[in-house]
Amino acid sequence: IGITSLLANGVYTSAYPLHDGDIEGVTAEPNDRKLLFEEWASYSVFYKYQPIGLIRKYFGEKVGLYFAWLGVYTQMLIPAAIVGVIVFLYGCATVDDNIPSMEICDPRNNITMCPLCDSVCSYWKLETACGTARASHLFDNPATVFFSIFMALWAVLFMEHWKRRQMRLNYVWDLTDYGMEEEDHNRAEYELRVAEKTMRQDQEGPKVGLRSDSGGIFVTLVITFGVILYRISIKTALHLSTYPAARSNIRATVKTTAAIINLVVIIILDEIYALIARWLTTLEVPKTDKSFEERLIFKTFILKFVNAFTPIVYLAFFRGRLVGRPGKYLYVVGSYRMEECAHAGCLMELCIQLCITMLGKQLIQNNLFEIGIPKLKKLLRKRKSELTSKQEEELHKTLKCYEKDHVLGPFVGINPEYMEMIIQFGMVTLFVASFPLAPLFALLNNIIEIRLDAKKFVLELRRPIAAKAKDIGIWYNLLRGLSKVAVIVNAFVIAFTSDFVPRLVYQYTYSPDGTMHGFVNHTLSYFNVSDFQKGTEPSIPKFDVKVCRYKDYREPPWSNTPYELSKEFWAILAVRLAFVIVFQNVVMLMSDFVDWLIPDIPKDISFQIHKEKLLMLDHFMKEEGRRRDNYNHDGYNSPSSGNASPHQLHSRPSFHARAGW
Amino acid sequence: IGITSLLANGVYTSAYPLHDGDIEGVTAEPNDRKLLFEEWASYSVFYKYQPIGLIRKYFGEKVGLYFAWLGVYTQMLIPAAIVGVIVFLYGCATVDDNIPSMEICDPRNNITMCPLCDSVCSYWKLETACGTARASHLFDNPATVFFSIFMALWAVLFMEHWKRRQMRLNYVWDLTDYGMEEEDHNRAEYELRVAEKTMRQDQEGPKVGLRSDSGGIFVTLVITFGVILYRISIKTALHLSTYPAARSNIRATVKTTAAIINLVVIIILDEIYALIARWLTTLEVPKTDKSFEERLIFKTFILKFVNAFTPIVYLAFFRGRLVGRPGKYLYVVGSYRMEECAHAGCLMELCIQLCITMLGKQLIQNNLFEIGIPKLKKLLRKRKSELTSKQEEELHKTLKCYEKDHVLGPFVGINPEYMEMIIQFGMVTLFVASFPLAPLFALLNNIIEIRLDAKKFVLELRRPIAAKAKDIGIWYNLLRGLSKVAVIVNAFVIAFTSDFVPRLVYQYTYSPDGTMHGFVNHTLSYFNVSDFQKGTEPSIPKFDVKVCRYKDYREPPWSNTPYELSKEFWAILAVRLAFVIVFQNVVMLMSDFVDWLIPDIPKDISFQIHKEKLLMLDHFMKEEGRRRDNYNHDGYNSPSSGNASPHQLHSRPSFHARAGW
Repeated sequence: IGITSLLANGVYTSAYPLHDGDIEGVTAEPNDRKLLFEEWASYSVFYKYQPIGLIRKYFGEKVGLYFAWLGVYTQMLIPAAIVGVIVFLYGCATVDDNIPSMEICDPRNNITMCPLCDSVCSYWKLETACGTARASHLFDNPATVFFSIFMALWAVLFMEHWKRRQMRLNYVWDLTDYGMEEEDHNRAEYELRVAEKTMRQDQEGPKVGLRSDSGGIFVTLVITFGVILYRISIKTALHLSTYPAARSNIRATVKTTAAIINLVVIIILDEIYALIARWLTTLEVPKTDKSFEERLIFKTFILKFVNAFTPIVYLAFFRGRLVGRPGKYLYVVGSYRMEECAHAGCLMELCIQLCITMLGKQLIQNNLFEIGIPKLKKLLRKRKSELTSKQEEELHKTLKCYEKDHVLGPFVGINPEYMEMIIQFGMVTLFVASFPLAPLFALLNNIIEIRLDAKKFVLELRRPIAAKAKDIGIWYNLLRGLSKVAVIVNAFVIAFTSDFVPRLVYQYTYSPDGTMHGFVNHTLSYFNVSDFQKGTEPSIPKFDVKVCRYKDYREPPWSNTPYELSKEFWAILAVRLAFVIVFQNVVMLMSDFVDWLIPDIPKDISFQIHKEKLLMLDHFMKEEGRRRDNYNHDGYNSPSSGNASPHQLHSRPSFHARAGW
Repeated sequence: IGITSLLANGVYTSAYPLHDGDIEGVTAEPNDRKLLFEEWASYSVFYKYQPIGLIRKYFGEKVGLYFAWLGVYTQMLIPAAIVGVIVFLYGCATVDDNIPSMEICDPRNNITMCPLCDSVCSYWKLETACGTARASHLFDNPATVFFSIFMALWAVLFMEHWKRRQMRLNYVWDLTDYGMEEEDHNRAEYELRVAEKTMRQDQEGPKVGLRSDSGGIFVTLVITFGVILYRISIKTALHLSTYPAARSNIRATVKTTAAIINLVVIIILDEIYALIARWLTTLEVPKTDKSFEERLIFKTFILKFVNAFTPIVYLAFFRGRLVGRPGKYLYVVGSYRMEECAHAGCLMELCIQLCITMLGKQLIQNNLFEIGIPKLKKLLRKRKSELTSKQEEELHKTLKCYEKDHVLGPFVGINPEYMEMIIQFGMVTLFVASFPLAPLFALLNNIIEIRLDAKKFVLELRRPIAAKAKDIGIWYNLLRGLSKVAVIVNAFVIAFTSDFVPRLVYQYTYSPDGTMHGFVNHTLSYFNVSDFQKGTEPSIPKFDVKVCRYKDYREPPWSNTPYELSKEFWAILAVRLAFVIVFQNVVMLMSDFVDWLIPDIPKDISFQIHKEKLLMLDHFMKEEGRRRDNYNHDGYNSPSSGNASPHQLHSRPSFHARAGW
């Protein structure tokens, strides 16, 4: 219909609104674009509030709401980042008071651990894991429990705050009745299909969507599994290496390269998934534009979310648990033994993975792509052009404004911006128990992101067609879903990934003196070296030992049922599950309480709306009286009273009007 | 202000609207009251829908909404009752296929159990518990898991259905903008206090409320504890009795009398709590009438809820768990041993308690009080009067309508009606895992309740002052809270009170052949009779045994750590907790999905509202054009165009109007 069909048929190449004018040069008169450039799209004003009213005036309500939401999000990140830094510093401060890591580092304990891989690895002393244990205390301490609860409530407060801000903006921007008046136009493709009346496509459409959604998730899982295999093989290869110095850095090397591979794969898959999601949604032929957009967003979000979080979920909950035990290890794809975590647990590796993914995604996807690629394009264009840069500038001055705007990139909507922010929100809330500095990194990124996006919209892209929107739509539902999932994921991280529960149980149940002494010994089980399977015992044992220790709760070799899961295992498992139940329900109760306590509409706004209604009603009654008088005056000779009679207002009409007309 | 202050000062005795007229007698002309009496307030039309429009016209929107809600609730109870009966019949049908109860009933197993009380009780054979075991299978079978999930979803569907019906009624009754126009008047007491400016009372008010709320809950718990003590002492006394026939009926006698005492205490406390709640709320001096009503409802609900459910919660989760073990029983208040449940578990006793409480409350509180007491009052009044009944009737005919209405009872609001229904809703949803027939009983009660309340409002009470209301207010929030609590309570009932999880674990882990054979033996632990404490062993042992069995998962006397909780205990506890987590989260996910799937406003209603807005806008634009024309015609000589110019409508006013004026 109209210009869209002309564009689709290639009659015109593009159609776009014009920017207000130039921003550089002394001859440029003051215009909105220049104002935005100086007051908003500049790194030097990063500490100022955004001029949301001006943004809305220039770009429309949809873009204005995005930047308002981003501003609220960034503001709310400030207290979260401060508390996160405090929690991290607490971990740093107490790293030396931590009895279990002191026991690990104490060489007098002389604990010999079982080999980490078959044949080529040898026994090792526990004190070599001292550094890792101390480092992991930075993230595995009781303050993380408090911080998880704090972040769950933070998420609720953030969304309440945003709801109220959105309501205020709705009032100020005169959008309060907008939702009801917007007509959802049917898409051209949908009408075409209805005209064709092909039942076969109708039935196949949704199934294709479902099958390919699962297909995308399956691909992600397969790739994650591939990365795991890569890690195992590299580790074994490095062990086989005879270069001694390499061995001491083995773990660090493997971890870092694996994390980088993960990151690269995630970024590549992200782009592929965006295309897959669009293809799937087009297949479904949704009815309206709004419905198309919502389904596209939902599919893209699911695929990107699984993509970003699968390696993290694997690290948090699966690694180190499917290992088996000495003498009966679990082998995957032949002779690869399942990975274990470092002795101190998986929490630190989880933290490193999160850190690399978060920083990497933000640096590469956001900044590199958003700054680098346009600059690269500019550079290529400059190289192709045969003019010098001075001649370019002269030519540029003579161009008309529509020619200048044509050079800029097309506006593709703000959904990609929302998508990055939602994935970042997921990283900030979902595994915050293992990475208290996540809000700080998100805050720093967002401060730059706001101005980066601002520059992009003001300088690099064509002016968007102003779209009206009353709220942020499906993104709000995704935020709410994420914060609900965050509660249970954090409960599981604290209960299963961290060492919080075993320490608690030990201190109050198994400890002979009520302190943490003896905890390390309690968490290790005995293994008789003669019970090794043929060919798996170390070929070059460094130490001559009869028993080696391994981290698990199993019966010793001298019990009735050697190497079975011991009573302590089940007792600690029961306490872990009880912790999850208590944590989830307490946090849900507190969230619901905060949600109920804070009203959705700010009091002054609801008061204003109420007052306006009364004024409107008043005005209407006077109008009715006047009309009736005119009618009486024209048609009859009865005396007219200035007031409307009560009978006419028996069925009182209800109004909701704007003052000001 | 006005009539309320005159009534308060005793200038007038009462002020009330009049009923439409008489309902009996051939001379009575057709009126609304008669119509209501014939079509609504009559047991013979119990199968018909209620005439909600007529109820609203006669009594006002608040009463109309109550009966509409009660109608929806009763309708929704029909499928729930049907499924509950099917589940119950399934239990009846499979009672003979149940291997564990067959093993209990099999005398060849020859299991000797430890005594149920000290000294006076003796050992007993397990097969004497055969009847109880078979009966408890009626309620403790896998179908209850399915029924709990069904009822959780039923609660969500019920509330979605009600929301949509309420929205439809709002539209039809012209209430859509009502909430904004209603002004909340300050209460006279509040303004008095503000005038007095007593800071001291302001600070004490809320504290008193909190302290006395906890006080009321404490009183309930103390009374429950007293009933428990009563049961223990009666049981011991009956054991001491030398009458042999009494012993076989001991458990039944004690259970029944205790349940009846519980019931009587609950009913008495209910009345006391209603008065306490009112006194507390008055102390707080809330600001407005609406706020006063909400706080009163909330306090009364909390106190009545704790009152009705404390004995049930005790039965479900605490009884039989604090018993201790043979040789080391837990004693309370001297020499009373904590009670145990019947061998088959507490589920059947829970069911009986629920049954008695539900039926008893409904029969006594609802029917006896609501039918019996008015009839009693009428009888007393007839006795006091010196006229015969024929003279009464003659006199009655000569009375004026206001005199006739004066004899009727005053209208006290519909909150007591809501309160009974909400407590009943709690009983239907909260412990439904143990009592599948609860929806059926609720359904039968409600069918009678509707017509009972109808008769009461039409015949026995004065006509209420019609109050407008847009929704059922705080009752909806209480319903939502109850259905959320119901999910986790049912999860705990299935996991801890029923035998579902131990059977599952046994069948898939400990069973040698994958069937349930040997389950009973697995759940019993051994006790060496020589380990009894002095004075607690049976004085008259019926059987000569060296070991007796008791129901617990403990180590046998010949292990390293005799009588300690065994590994099976912890493993089964872990599985129970895991079940709670999985059940709660799966049901919450399904409920949220159903909630999201069903739109809050029925499509035809939202379409109608949208259409009316467009018509309103159209009309307004024509009016503006006409006004402008008149203005131009009067003031200026410029040509008038019939259409409104676009400039005037730049800031488009937003309307939401009713058609029909």
